Amino acid sequence: MYDLVIFNGILVNAATISYPPIYIGVKDGKVAAISSLPIEGVKSIDAQGGIITPGGIDSHVHIDQPHSLPADSFETATRSAICGGTTTVCSFANQFKDEESIFPAIKEYQGRAYGTCYCDYGMHLIISNTNPKFLNEEMPIMVREYGITSVKMYMTYKALKLSDSEIIKMLITAKGLGVTTMIHAENSEMIDYIIDHFKEVGKTQPYYHAASRPELAEDEASYRAISLSKLADQSLLIVHMSTKPSLEHVRQAQSMNYPIYSETCPQYLFLTSEYLKSHCCAHHEEQPVIDDGNSITIDQEDPYQGAKYICSPPLRESKKELNEVWRYLENGTVTVYSSDHCPSQYDNSEGKKKGLKEDGSMDFSVVPNGLPGVETRLPLLFCYGVEAGRITAQRFVEVSSTNPAALYGMSKMKGSIDVGLDADIIIWYPKGKMKPFKLKNKMLHHRIDYTPYEGMEFKNWPRYTILRGKVVWDRENGGLQKENGHIGRYLRRGESTMGVH
Amino acid sequence: MYDLVIFNGILVNAATISYPPIYIGVKDGKVAAISSLPIEGVKSIDAQGGIITPGGIDSHVHIDQPHSLPADSFETATRSAICGGTTTVCSFANQFKDEESIFPAIKEYQGRAYGTCYCDYGMHLIISNTNPKFLNEEMPIMVREYGITSVKMYMTYKALKLSDSEIIKMLITAKGLGVTTMIHAENSEMIDYIIDHFKEVGKTQPYYHAASRPELAEDEASYRAISLSKLADQSLLIVHMSTKPSLEHVRQAQSMNYPIYSETCPQYLFLTSEYLKSHCCAHHEEQPVIDDGNSITIDQEDPYQGAKYICSPPLRESKKELNEVWRYLENGTVTVYSSDHCPSQYDNSEGKKKGLKEDGSMDFSVVPNGLPGVETRLPLLFCYGVEAGRITAQRFVEVSSTNPAALYGMSKMKGSIDVGLDADIIIWYPKGKMKPFKLKNKMLHHRIDYTPYEGMEFKNWPRYTILRGKVVWDRENGGLQKENGHIGRYLRRGESTMGVH
Amino acid sequence: MYDLVIFNGILVNAATISYPPIYIGVKDGKVAAISSLPIEGVKSIDAQGGIITPGGIDSHVHIDQPHSLPADSFETATRSAICGGTTTVCSFANQFKDEESIFPAIKEYQGRAYGTCYCDYGMHLIISNTNPKFLNEEMPIMVREYGITSVKMYMTYKALKLSDSEIIKMLITAKGLGVTTMIHAENSEMIDYIIDHFKEVGKTQPYYHAASRPELAEDEASYRAISLSKLADQSLLIVHMSTKPSLEHVRQAQSMNYPIYSETCPQYLFLTSEYLKSHCCAHHEEQPVIDDGNSITIDQEDPYQGAKYICSPPLRESKKELNEVWRYLENGTVTVYSSDHCPSQYDNSEGKKKGLKEDGSMDFSVVPNGLPGVETRLPLLFCYGVEAGRITAQRFVEVSSTNPAALYGMSKMKGSIDVGLDADIIIWYPKGKMKPFKLKNKMLHHRIDYTPYEGMEFKNWPRYTILRGKVVWDRENGGLQKENGHIGRYLRRGESTMGVH
Amino acid sequence: MYDLVIFNGILVNAATISYPPIYIGVKDGKVAAISSLPIEGVKSIDAQGGIITPGGIDSHVHIDQPHSLPADSFETATRSAICGGTTTVCSFANQFKDEESIFPAIKEYQGRAYGTCYCDYGMHLIISNTNPKFLNEEMPIMVREYGITSVKMYMTYKALKLSDSEIIKMLITAKGLGVTTMIHAENSEMIDYIIDHFKEVGKTQPYYHAASRPELAEDEASYRAISLSKLADQSLLIVHMSTKPSLEHVRQAQSMNYPIYSETCPQYLFLTSEYLKSHCCAHHEEQPVIDDGNSITIDQEDPYQGAKYICSPPLRESKKELNEVWRYLENGTVTVYSSDHCPSQYDNSEGKKKGLKEDGSMDFSVVPNGLPGVETRLPLLFCYGVEAGRITAQRFVEVSSTNPAALYGMSKMKGSIDVGLDADIIIWYPKGKMKPFKLKNKMLHHRIDYTPYEGMEFKNWPRYTILRGKVVWDRENGGLQKENGHIGRYLRRGESTMGVH
Ligand SMILES: [Zn+2]
Ligand SMILES: [Zn+2]
Ligand SMILES: [Zn+2]
Ligand SMILES: [Zn+2]
Ligand SMILES: [Zn+2]
Ligand SMILES: [Zn+2]
Ligand SMILES: [Zn+2]
Ligand SMILES: [Zn+2]
Repeated sequence: MYDLVIFNGILVNAATISYPPIYIGVKDGKVAAISSLPIEGVKSIDAQGGIITPGGIDSHVHIDQPHSLPADSFETATRSAICGGTTTVCSFANQFKDEESIFPAIKEYQGRAYGTCYCDYGMHLIISNTNPKFLNEEMPIMVREYGITSVKMYMTYKALKLSDSEIIKMLITAKGLGVTTMIHAENSEMIDYIIDHFKEVGKTQPYYHAASRPELAEDEASYRAISLSKLADQSLLIVHMSTKPSLEHVRQAQSMNYPIYSETCPQYLFLTSEYLKSHCCAHHEEQPVIDDGNSITIDQEDPYQGAKYICSPPLRESKKELNEVWRYLENGTVTVYSSDHCPSQYDNSEGKKKGLKEDGSMDFSVVPNGLPGVETRLPLLFCYGVEAGRITAQRFVEVSSTNPAALYGMSKMKGSIDVGLDADIIIWYPKGKMKPFKLKNKMLHHRIDYTPYEGMEFKNWPRYTILRGKVVWDRENGGLQKENGHIGRYLRRGESTMGVH
Repeated sequence: MYDLVIFNGILVNAATISYPPIYIGVKDGKVAAISSLPIEGVKSIDAQGGIITPGGIDSHVHIDQPHSLPADSFETATRSAICGGTTTVCSFANQFKDEESIFPAIKEYQGRAYGTCYCDYGMHLIISNTNPKFLNEEMPIMVREYGITSVKMYMTYKALKLSDSEIIKMLITAKGLGVTTMIHAENSEMIDYIIDHFKEVGKTQPYYHAASRPELAEDEASYRAISLSKLADQSLLIVHMSTKPSLEHVRQAQSMNYPIYSETCPQYLFLTSEYLKSHCCAHHEEQPVIDDGNSITIDQEDPYQGAKYICSPPLRESKKELNEVWRYLENGTVTVYSSDHCPSQYDNSEGKKKGLKEDGSMDFSVVPNGLPGVETRLPLLFCYGVEAGRITAQRFVEVSSTNPAALYGMSKMKGSIDVGLDADIIIWYPKGKMKPFKLKNKMLHHRIDYTPYEGMEFKNWPRYTILRGKVVWDRENGGLQKENGHIGRYLRRGESTMGVH
Repeated sequence: MYDLVIFNGILVNAATISYPPIYIGVKDGKVAAISSLPIEGVKSIDAQGGIITPGGIDSHVHIDQPHSLPADSFETATRSAICGGTTTVCSFANQFKDEESIFPAIKEYQGRAYGTCYCDYGMHLIISNTNPKFLNEEMPIMVREYGITSVKMYMTYKALKLSDSEIIKMLITAKGLGVTTMIHAENSEMIDYIIDHFKEVGKTQPYYHAASRPELAEDEASYRAISLSKLADQSLLIVHMSTKPSLEHVRQAQSMNYPIYSETCPQYLFLTSEYLKSHCCAHHEEQPVIDDGNSITIDQEDPYQGAKYICSPPLRESKKELNEVWRYLENGTVTVYSSDHCPSQYDNSEGKKKGLKEDGSMDFSVVPNGLPGVETRLPLLFCYGVEAGRITAQRFVEVSSTNPAALYGMSKMKGSIDVGLDADIIIWYPKGKMKPFKLKNKMLHHRIDYTPYEGMEFKNWPRYTILRGKVVWDRENGGLQKENGHIGRYLRRGESTMGVH
Repeated sequence: MYDLVIFNGILVNAATISYPPIYIGVKDGKVAAISSLPIEGVKSIDAQGGIITPGGIDSHVHIDQPHSLPADSFETATRSAICGGTTTVCSFANQFKDEESIFPAIKEYQGRAYGTCYCDYGMHLIISNTNPKFLNEEMPIMVREYGITSVKMYMTYKALKLSDSEIIKMLITAKGLGVTTMIHAENSEMIDYIIDHFKEVGKTQPYYHAASRPELAEDEASYRAISLSKLADQSLLIVHMSTKPSLEHVRQAQSMNYPIYSETCPQYLFLTSEYLKSHCCAHHEEQPVIDDGNSITIDQEDPYQGAKYICSPPLRESKKELNEVWRYLENGTVTVYSSDHCPSQYDNSEGKKKGLKEDGSMDFSVVPNGLPGVETRLPLLFCYGVEAGRITAQRFVEVSSTNPAALYGMSKMKGSIDVGLDADIIIWYPKGKMKPFKLKNKMLHHRIDYTPYEGMEFKNWPRYTILRGKVVWDRENGGLQKENGHIGRYLRRGESTMGVH
């Protein structure tokens, strides 16, 4: 007798599809059996012919971080996650340049999360300082005792940026410890030069944020990051990639069998820098359209509304650029699809409106970077990728669950619906069976006063989200299942198994 | 109660690995359950920690074909297959240029196979004539009634070669019917020019076969084939690819999301044209070595022995070329790994010795093309690919079973160990547990008097091969399981699901 | 005392610019001195600060050819040439598939030209038959005795098309004799397939000519041509290139130092397939514009007017495609810029109107291919290339005179203003000193009833054209200088010196 | 009556060759006439059928610089230059990081050179500090009053290295002033990391210099330099390029018509890192051979001799790497060929032996970088490039004289044998007419105790070098013409005309 049996669905994993009759038996929070013969459970769910995929893993979300207040807490971010089908997030703890030890920060973040999460969560460490004590003494402990097996480096942002030699040292140490290395690749000196120039000439409205971070900055930095990685003979994930030249660098490296990985995010597939403009802006041409007949609603009356779309790398120019990112998603170059959920309140003087002065003048350069997106990530790709026929359902699973699990050392727990793994499961509506709706921010479960996808139509959405065998989201029956709230657990992760022989 | 339970193995599918405890339950020839809890079976097999992979699919074998006699029959070829872990083969029926209808040929081939096969088998049709009757009337019947959903075209060989316009017509018709198109891509006019030239100047020993089919012939023809495929908007598999420039064409097309697929074979990963030389040949330099310390045994005393290695495309020059093919296998460009098993007896005047005249003079141009390899295909890639750390076990499964199943419309039956699919299974020895041996031809089960891999060392080999739940090969207990001989069934195949959204 | 002294001009050769004071002394039809000190001449011309360039060499013009009647005669084509600054043309003699010997054809063409030409002229031979007599016996005589050192091959057009093996033979023979090989590279089987299809579905208006010859046909054929050329180890000029993929093939080959050369023509830099449409055509969108504010005049009332723009390869889709061709012109990939002057009368039932039936129905497939352009070639590139700042004046000279001279074995006579060479010279107006005009066909000197550039603005034009020291065109003084008419001589050419070490 | 007439030679310029009869008339130091008719001169030189090329311009030589003492003075370096056919050098003045103004340094360098030079000379400025005073106030004066129109930046060497933002500022300022920008592109942080590592593990012999500066360092830095250049929309010359990946970056940029230029030097065409090894070194394999049967003499008994070959970028691994550089020279990617003459005495404790301690231990990291080469530069390329058939004589002229003249704003004075330009001329021996010799250092005219080309065979050498009409080197008559010594003049240069429209 299983705790839960799910039947009558189309089971999609990263490489395979299985059609009914198929019964998934869950026991003690894990998938205990997959059977073509009926099996019995205390509870059972009829998937009614819908697709069943592994619970989503969003391996790049910023929660409760210094620069993003007022924003989501662990509670609200993970609540938002499960309502969109994500059962695991990886958030960041920050090492500060001037702190002696990383452990207080790690403990602080773990304390903030403990007991409040709706989904399981792991932690990356953001590195801003490669002192020998950290590299030689603390990193081994971090890996061994805290199960933190991934670090993120920045090539931009004054407070975080590492020099090439620091990156080399970090890569080499990480290689020795089996730690996954992530990098934000934009050339900060190019960007700073342009920002200074824009300030001199008074180009400070939100749109100039996008113009200040040209494709070239990502192009150059990603090439450099790959070069450093080759030198160190260590694998590398370049996060939130947004342009053809940088993705082409990754593809070329992959062609030569270098272990270079790429991440992209919904904003680089769906949004253009047109959204950073407003009606009062000379650049504005026409209402950008996501897909034929499907537009996003923008408040044309608010000349500052573009600030909602400030993130880095910035949204790119046009649908042509979006299509190039789609191409690399489709052709296998993109390894991981995550949200880079990093929101701020819009109507808040410490949030996006930090760049709006009382006299109405604007300064894009002080606006907190980042967009909300943990809840919309999976439905966007499922609707506009899978159901629209751009990618297979298997590829959807691969980039949104299986690969993140492998890359971040969670393959023995997560990332696939296979016996022995956690029973983290999404059941989708059968195609055409859900009533389409246009998204309104109030439908979402984050603690943010806007969504960049306001007004977009969705034809599917997770009907059930199941975390370790427990239904945490049941869209037809009250949505969020409060009785299964706060059951998220901290994940001690192992070594990456991505591409491991 | 299952018919058979396999336990204590590491289950490897194309995207995932599952570790024990894992129980695979087989009923009525199919995988009926995969469970982490013990299940009971009439029979059970302890995999003892070895890797378990789906039965191999060798989608490119020539059996009982006009040009390859005296060679394998369906019985001997499929017997050889299962002894090497292959549970499904796709063989070829030939359309002849002058025949009115294709059905007699199809029936003839099916008759030859019927009741004699050790493994399951499907059939492709070789096209040499694109007359309207065939395209418009017979092809739909072939697909619908015979389950033949793939055709092979040739750009070379006088008797088979199609013109560009015939290829276009074939591609367009195939697209309409959901038929998979394969193509042998070598520029025949280049090759004929060189052969004529070699004959004029007396260069007729076996080695000149390789020299007569330069990389350029494959480079050009594959580019042309891809171009025709783009025109027809139809997917294409280029078979037995052997060189960097042609594989790079495929990779470039894949980068642009064209459905262009690539096949390679063991001979292009392991053998060089050095083997076509003999001690009396000016070109001969040194005994070629497959891997450090592992060489193949060649009869240096036989000046004609190079004929054993005549196949098309030919073996390429050096280890550098082999490594390029490996690179494309590793980086994901190669879709399918098959044997192109197409053997002839060596010591037979209708076999390889057709090119050796009584006076000792030689003529490479009349030697039947092709090598035996259906039995060695999987062990070669498992030992030198997976265990040597060049590719993951998942990638091994993908190219040798899952992708062929998808490409040739068998995903609902074969290609993965998943519930509902045929229980075609290989159990390998745990790494290091099999006593290594050096291959001798007499160890193999084909009807051919040599193997090109004579003397090569193997550190693993299928311990069990299971076809639809029946053990057909048990290496520790008598090898071939005669009582389960001749159970192979003809496979009526459906439409390709390769890359289908 | 020189016969003629030209002074006060800016002398531009392919690599250098010399500024006044500079005196060019001509004697006996040749440049006898270039001096910074004054020299004396019987006649003298003050260039008034204008640019002086070598007389243009148009190495690709069709005159008096079987398929292009009623069109230009040698007299009218060469008259048109010199009025546009071209002092040398290379025209074609045709080998017919069924003729026993090439010499009658050569003599016939030479007879047609003799004594009627306004400029010097060489001849290429169009090859349609590679029989051994021609290759082994006649070609050496053709080179030695007629000074015909170049041949053109076609990969398209039923009457002319060579197979790959014929091309190989031709290339190898040409290599042995030092003969330059030109090739028209379009895949005829692709094109024929599309034409047949268009006819079936009634798409026969002029515009469908362009659609019937897609980029892919040129892409594939140029790759194949280059491959055959590599096999034969012979240099190759691909004529009238019109697309990015094919030009990229040439660039890649050049990168590897293969002697692969490329020609383009004004139509591929200035005209799009929009011109093939007319107002009644569903495809028509807007009046295409050559350059901001500079449009070509089209008779919107004539639904058949698109036939004026039928040539092969066809005009390509949009300004984006034109810009790619410009890019390869600018970056050095294009070797030769010629007109492919190949005109037919428009309003003539044997001319362009051959495709317009009495009932008003149309058939693009029978319209004679080709555009007039020998007179407009140089002014177009000088105005829109040099004066508009896209290319240097040196590059203009290189592609329109120096390179054609070298490629076709005329460097010891033509292609540069250097002592010892023929005094073929253009003097341009100083920038801004000529009154701009909009082109009308009646301003031109060919025997054709339209120009594809009708209405285009020109800001410069050859002020003087000088052929072997004689002024043959003096724009301010009567234009065509009748007293120097018909002085054109036949050029016996030598071996190519293009890229020769 | 001309001062000098040169006749009976083959005149080669960058795009053209003129054959005798040809008379070059020189008056007042300039070419005053080129004539096919005899002209008279006070003096005359019979070139006896040899090739005549413009005097060489070596635009990258270090003379009398802080780090390279004891080395050449302006007198000895320019003496060496003319004996090898170079009539113009561009040397460097250094801006020091801590100096307030650049003018003292410029004046100091001009003072050192004044009155001592055997050839004409210009000066670049090495930038190590981009303070606003320099950029805004001093640079315009430097250009206008000193005729210094080029600057060099470094991405490596602690004392010189500029950050990305300094490079951007420099590029933008240079663009505004029409100043040519040169850059030494190696990633210093990669290199420093490796050097530190080598020191830790005791790898300090000369060979490790090469290993410490991998291809990757040049690959990355050149890509970054090009990216910065695109951002600033300014042209860029990358100096002394030595590897395929970096040269491919340049080629790709040139393909897109970015004004990115490339320099290479003889050492990257002729020497491998084998020379950095000595017999006692584990890496040493065999005597490297420049060309079949032509080797360089190395003192195998001196374990430190490799220090003679220390330069940056370092010599690369093998003939394969050399051939790639040759390929880019041949295919047009390389713009400028210069010597990077930057020598130090070998047997001097402030010279190369600075890295050899009294106890015999070695430290490559303190050895002065650079090789002597101003005298051997042209003969090497003429013999092994032109006469060996790898490049045309025109290409030789282009990279060694015409392009440097254009790039550095000297086209109105130098770089071609054209009327109105300085009569800087080399007359070579007719091919095969000079007695071949093996180079010995004592044959050279620098002040250095070794040449890296010791023992190499030369089959040609400048027979005459003529500077502004004066014979300064007459190999058959005493060599150096002392009476014309010290006539070198300082060149006030203008704006670059490279690629200018
Ligand atoms: Zn980031
Ligand atoms: Zn982020
Ligand atoms: Zn084949
Ligand atoms: Zn085959
Ligand atoms: Zn043509
Ligand atoms: Zn033509
Ligand atoms: Zn340097
Ligand atoms: Zn230097």
